[in-house]
Amino acid sequence: MSHLYKRSYNGPLKAIIFDWAGTTMDYGCLSPASPFIETFKLFNLDISMSEARGPMGMFKRDHIKTILNMPRIKKQWNEFYKRDLTEKDIDNIFETYLPLQFEVLANFKKLIPGAKETVDHARKMGLKIGSTTGYSREMIKILLPLATEQGYCPDNVICMDEVPAGRPSPWMAVMSAMKLGVYPFSSIVKVGDTVVDIEEGLNAGMWTVALAKCGNEMGLSESEVNALSPIEYDIRLNRAYNTLSKAGAHFVIDSISDLPTIIDEINRRLQKGECP
Amino acid sequence: MSHLYKRSYNGPLKAIIFDWAGTTMDYGCLSPASPFIETFKLFNLDISMSEARGPMGMFKRDHIKTILNMPRIKKQWNEFYKRDLTEKDIDNIFETYLPLQFEVLANFKKLIPGAKETVDHARKMGLKIGSTTGYSREMIKILLPLATEQGYCPDNVICMDEVPAGRPSPWMAVMSAMKLGVYPFSSIVKVGDTVVDIEEGLNAGMWTVALAKCGNEMGLSESEVNALSPIEYDIRLNRAYNTLSKAGAHFVIDSISDLPTIIDEINRRLQKGECP
Amino acid sequence: MSHLYKRSYNGPLKAIIFDWAGTTMDYGCLSPASPFIETFKLFNLDISMSEARGPMGMFKRDHIKTILNMPRIKKQWNEFYKRDLTEKDIDNIFETYLPLQFEVLANFKKLIPGAKETVDHARKMGLKIGSTTGYSREMIKILLPLATEQGYCPDNVICMDEVPAGRPSPWMAVMSAMKLGVYPFSSIVKVGDTVVDIEEGLNAGMWTVALAKCGNEMGLSESEVNALSPIEYDIRLNRAYNTLSKAGAHFVIDSISDLPTIIDEINRRLQKGECP
Amino acid sequence: MSHLYKRSYNGPLKAIIFDWAGTTMDYGCLSPASPFIETFKLFNLDISMSEARGPMGMFKRDHIKTILNMPRIKKQWNEFYKRDLTEKDIDNIFETYLPLQFEVLANFKKLIPGAKETVDHARKMGLKIGSTTGYSREMIKILLPLATEQGYCPDNVICMDEVPAGRPSPWMAVMSAMKLGVYPFSSIVKVGDTVVDIEEGLNAGMWTVALAKCGNEMGLSESEVNALSPIEYDIRLNRAYNTLSKAGAHFVIDSISDLPTIIDEINRRLQKGECP
Amino acid sequence: MSHLYKRSYNGPLKAIIFDWAGTTMDYGCLSPASPFIETFKLFNLDISMSEARGPMGMFKRDHIKTILNMPRIKKQWNEFYKRDLTEKDIDNIFETYLPLQFEVLANFKKLIPGAKETVDHARKMGLKIGSTTGYSREMIKILLPLATEQGYCPDNVICMDEVPAGRPSPWMAVMSAMKLGVYPFSSIVKVGDTVVDIEEGLNAGMWTVALAKCGNEMGLSESEVNALSPIEYDIRLNRAYNTLSKAGAHFVIDSISDLPTIIDEINRRLQKGECP
Amino acid sequence: MSHLYKRSYNGPLKAIIFDWAGTTMDYGCLSPASPFIETFKLFNLDISMSEARGPMGMFKRDHIKTILNMPRIKKQWNEFYKRDLTEKDIDNIFETYLPLQFEVLANFKKLIPGAKETVDHARKMGLKIGSTTGYSREMIKILLPLATEQGYCPDNVICMDEVPAGRPSPWMAVMSAMKLGVYPFSSIVKVGDTVVDIEEGLNAGMWTVALAKCGNEMGLSESEVNALSPIEYDIRLNRAYNTLSKAGAHFVIDSISDLPTIIDEINRRLQKGECP
Repeated sequence: MSHLYKRSYNGPLKAIIFDWAGTTMDYGCLSPASPFIETFKLFNLDISMSEARGPMGMFKRDHIKTILNMPRIKKQWNEFYKRDLTEKDIDNIFETYLPLQFEVLANFKKLIPGAKETVDHARKMGLKIGSTTGYSREMIKILLPLATEQGYCPDNVICMDEVPAGRPSPWMAVMSAMKLGVYPFSSIVKVGDTVVDIEEGLNAGMWTVALAKCGNEMGLSESEVNALSPIEYDIRLNRAYNTLSKAGAHFVIDSISDLPTIIDEINRRLQKGECP
Repeated sequence: MSHLYKRSYNGPLKAIIFDWAGTTMDYGCLSPASPFIETFKLFNLDISMSEARGPMGMFKRDHIKTILNMPRIKKQWNEFYKRDLTEKDIDNIFETYLPLQFEVLANFKKLIPGAKETVDHARKMGLKIGSTTGYSREMIKILLPLATEQGYCPDNVICMDEVPAGRPSPWMAVMSAMKLGVYPFSSIVKVGDTVVDIEEGLNAGMWTVALAKCGNEMGLSESEVNALSPIEYDIRLNRAYNTLSKAGAHFVIDSISDLPTIIDEINRRLQKGECP
Repeated sequence: MSHLYKRSYNGPLKAIIFDWAGTTMDYGCLSPASPFIETFKLFNLDISMSEARGPMGMFKRDHIKTILNMPRIKKQWNEFYKRDLTEKDIDNIFETYLPLQFEVLANFKKLIPGAKETVDHARKMGLKIGSTTGYSREMIKILLPLATEQGYCPDNVICMDEVPAGRPSPWMAVMSAMKLGVYPFSSIVKVGDTVVDIEEGLNAGMWTVALAKCGNEMGLSESEVNALSPIEYDIRLNRAYNTLSKAGAHFVIDSISDLPTIIDEINRRLQKGECP
Repeated sequence: MSHLYKRSYNGPLKAIIFDWAGTTMDYGCLSPASPFIETFKLFNLDISMSEARGPMGMFKRDHIKTILNMPRIKKQWNEFYKRDLTEKDIDNIFETYLPLQFEVLANFKKLIPGAKETVDHARKMGLKIGSTTGYSREMIKILLPLATEQGYCPDNVICMDEVPAGRPSPWMAVMSAMKLGVYPFSSIVKVGDTVVDIEEGLNAGMWTVALAKCGNEMGLSESEVNALSPIEYDIRLNRAYNTLSKAGAHFVIDSISDLPTIIDEINRRLQKGECP
Repeated sequence: MSHLYKRSYNGPLKAIIFDWAGTTMDYGCLSPASPFIETFKLFNLDISMSEARGPMGMFKRDHIKTILNMPRIKKQWNEFYKRDLTEKDIDNIFETYLPLQFEVLANFKKLIPGAKETVDHARKMGLKIGSTTGYSREMIKILLPLATEQGYCPDNVICMDEVPAGRPSPWMAVMSAMKLGVYPFSSIVKVGDTVVDIEEGLNAGMWTVALAKCGNEMGLSESEVNALSPIEYDIRLNRAYNTLSKAGAHFVIDSISDLPTIIDEINRRLQKGECP
Repeated sequence: MSHLYKRSYNGPLKAIIFDWAGTTMDYGCLSPASPFIETFKLFNLDISMSEARGPMGMFKRDHIKTILNMPRIKKQWNEFYKRDLTEKDIDNIFETYLPLQFEVLANFKKLIPGAKETVDHARKMGLKIGSTTGYSREMIKILLPLATEQGYCPDNVICMDEVPAGRPSPWMAVMSAMKLGVYPFSSIVKVGDTVVDIEEGLNAGMWTVALAKCGNEMGLSESEVNALSPIEYDIRLNRAYNTLSKAGAHFVIDSISDLPTIIDEINRRLQKGECP
């Protein structure tokens, strides 16, 4: 007898893995943006906000290197320094950036509206809660207690300095799943606000949900969002949806408070034997 | 605009992750079978070869526990010992088993025909070679040099005592991939000869290939296989194919020497955007 | 990186394109049937009602040519005229047919039950309403005001003499969509009562809904339908369903008043990224 | 009987619709780039090459408007002119751009290597050749004889000023197909070098092939490409592949000379009843 | 653990089940056509060749009943007999038809070109050969020896009077498979030249191949086919292809001599786990 | 025109075909288990309950032969009888088994909870009820009146001695469908409690539902099930679910009383044109 048996997981979702800034905490993912701009200014390089945000979600040293390799910035570097960039230069810039980042970290501690409620709801459904971040362990040591105070405490946090390579590689998400003891990866949903967040989840074979309004792609504080004209709001939100959809996200939604509906939809698909 | 972009990897395979006994080394997966039977005899428990082999591929202590929980064996335990089994008993049996296993390990060091050639062929195609095993690191320390002598040396070996849970969990396969720096998991094929080998790969979202003839499911040495009557050979091989297909293996083949054709077929499917 | 991104539209339906006779107006698509039979009689050719209706939906000159090429009719022609048919003959027949058609046009002006309500419902959902027809612009100039009086006025009408080729080619449907400014074509549903209506929609890549009971395939007036014995009713309706299903219609329903449910179902499918 | 009949086209490809600059003519799509930069300089706005190229493929007035709405450029406008941009301003800039574009048009007349051979090969396979362009009819009147001289003369050219809306809408591609008399749209492949080229094809339900190396995304002349260091070449080509894949292109290849293999692959898929 | 295992047969085809007249024997399926026309003439009913052939493939009494229920024929009946048709009438006509059919049976004994060769080829590939027919056992008793003489002898023949219902029901095909001892039904291909042949196969869950040129849909003898003008040939063959495709045939080919390529294609699909 | 029309049945389910022991009657499928063990004891062979139950669902003589071919039992035979097994021996054992089976048959006559209600519900939905069994006609003659007394009387019963080969072949299921006059097979669901029950249905192209709790895989009476510790209950039920899922069942549920929900789900899938 020659038969093939195609296995598919058809139980419910078992875990959610959340990103940090722009996803559960720090509306608009503002915390890392200004330190980057400031740091580059100290090195006589003028970067725009959208250039600063492009590679968001990566390990911060990788992030700096990616910005420095943008043609417009590379040109500035070469014109000013009359020589090519070295790894040493990147180290210098990274070390300059670190204290600037630490300084502002706690200013952006506020949970994003709906974060606590969504996590509580998910826990009630029996889901475990992992998390991964582009921050280092040192930074998370500051942020985790601040989140806990506000009622959000994931079962684990994996930081970029704890895996051999940061996003878009899947290692942080996979380590988080291993600590949760949860598999197959099609029983997990990765939630984040950046392109590399989504790629991290896809590369791990997880479901992925992108948050367009409260995170890095919109890149504005809650009051800034509310102050936008309807036209400007639509243009910016559409651009955010477009960028995150094109990353391959299974779902793009406004914010973490819209997640429960998506969990139900994924559960319906899993039940039919669909995979991410 | 409301569009969905479904991402799929359409490059070629990047890595293979092999099991050890019954896959690349030790035709018939004989090494662990006899120590198990012998060990149980020392505890006045009579287990058949097929009972000994059922959970093959698991971490050896889990393997012992699984056998002890089979109704026929549980009954024997209860009748002889007049009491229920404890975790302590399992520890005792495991510790009794270990030296018996170490004793015979080197006797089954021979590579399975085609293992070296297939790995060389895969490396020439640019594939990396990971490996995972139900053996402990102590045991692999003995086997790895013996394999290397014969021309087979994978880029890494992950042992069961190095992850929080053994097969069928995906952790060993995923650790091996992380060490290789290879993702997405759909660019990797897991190859093994047991049900839990296949489940390890499926749980990691990898392609899976099961080996029916030279491994645990057939459970015979090369000369024993050759001595089978054609009818008996067909019955046993069919049973092996059936068991491994029902585990959900994407492909079941006779042995590692048939792997190159499957690699080509997987590459064809990947190119069309199919996933495991 | 080798990745494929399969785009699919997952917003809601944006437009419906309706056929005219037998779809929104003229229950049973009676208006063109009798003039055809009468015309052929004037040329000493005896065609049955089902032969007259077979190519319904085509441009009327094409329709006439198709009938003349049916073996049974061709034989009649040759027996009577003792010569082969020429394009000139077709022109003559077409010109004879035109005034007969104009004469009866207004007699069949009544909207099909549910047409107005369904269109109003669709407009309320935000859908635009296009239309295409096998009638010429001259004929539509008579019918459009009659429809408008009864409360049905589509956003546009494309006639067969305004495109290089009639149904089953997709050009009328596509012109209608262009005038509506609506795309992708998977956001549009074509609704009609004939085989070529469905083919027009399929050739344009639109969703297609066929109407079995009130149109050309049943080919009876409302009172004639009501007078059928239950058995005869079932036979005829089944035959209509069968013919329209075999044209490849995504959905076959009784009449335009059953359309709202189908719109909802298509919206559900689009949301999951399914395409026509 | 309740049966569904899902129709799919399973004949071969019938037509190819090519874009012009960067696809069949003008390696690197250089012709429109410099006039844009020059034009903006005349209005005291400094735009980078990558900003100039972003919306390439659109109708040129739309292109100018899109650039002016980029945050960095908008800011420049507001700082210099101390007032908001008006439609009148866009008209002025467009009118300034036109003569600059006409001036250089003929400088970039050279066919891209392989264009003539690929078109000849396709014609021999029985395929018809349509074309669409972001240029106006006035511009194409200059370019078409220059292409013809070099042996490339498509069966038709549809220009942006001949349809109600330019790319990414499907109207040009659909008009080209209508003139060719070719349908269903799944029997047509749209070939181009920009994001909106691909979207034009996808919105029409056609197969789409994106050209990464010789067109707008690489944005370099043949000699500039050859002068790149291998690393820089890889970075830029990967970026081009990534952008075009994320637009949803069914295939991304280096240049038009790689198209024949893709035609064969699409024919294989059509034969199995697959659709774009 | 919640897993679904979707089984699919991925071995090769095991059997072919052929229709008789128009498929393996009697080019053009001529044998039953004239007796039908003659019979109806005896009852003062004038039926066209295309009406005679419409329900071909059915049990002959069902075939007669289906013709009598066509509106045009029903009308003739009622006008001539001034009363409704009864089951008794159908019996009379059937009994009148039988001797007329028997009379001509042997005149159409010639195998269709390629029938013997294709069957021999299939047997060499290890395929078993079943057959089903609209003829009664009495008729087959005449035809089977005549086929055997010419080198074609299927492993079994199932006749319509041996099952509770004829085509389009699947019972004859299923009985043939049971006698061959072959399953699953996806390992069998049904080959025939009529709509109900295809429906018989589809209703049994088998692969189906329709023969367009040498059977009932073309309805011409080999010399008649050769005498057709190229245009007439194309029109008739296209119509045959269209009718058989719309029945849902997996493949439509000219004749039995084209079958070997299709067997290979089906085997390729089965190997990938595709089902009919 | 080259088009493919993929037909799929999209009406509702038309029939259910039930197995007998362990499915509608005889909770735990106890009736055949003890006679087997007793019979083997009379031949000096010691078989465990799980060995006795492994091939359950097969024709009883096949069942006996399968047990005798298990390595552990074969060894016992050879050690005791000092010679190989013959077909004659199997006949002897089968004849010894028969009266033992008849003796206990009526003891297990009780319908499984929910059987009557589910069948009544299905009949109200318009479904026909077929049945197939591993029992012989002689045995069913005893059981059918006992079932009827309790309110369960299927439209037909097909026994293993009425078809050329028993399960896993599809012949009984197909004969039952033929007697019901129901097709296509995708409009039928086969319900049973053993691996070969599911394979019978799959081989016929039907939907399959496996019952895990009240049948052979659990293998316990209702009171035994209720007496299990929660842990033991979970282990045994999981094992039953796992075995039946791996047979390829489309759905695995606890018992026949959970069937109505599954019927609704299958109807939803059929409506979308999905097949088993």
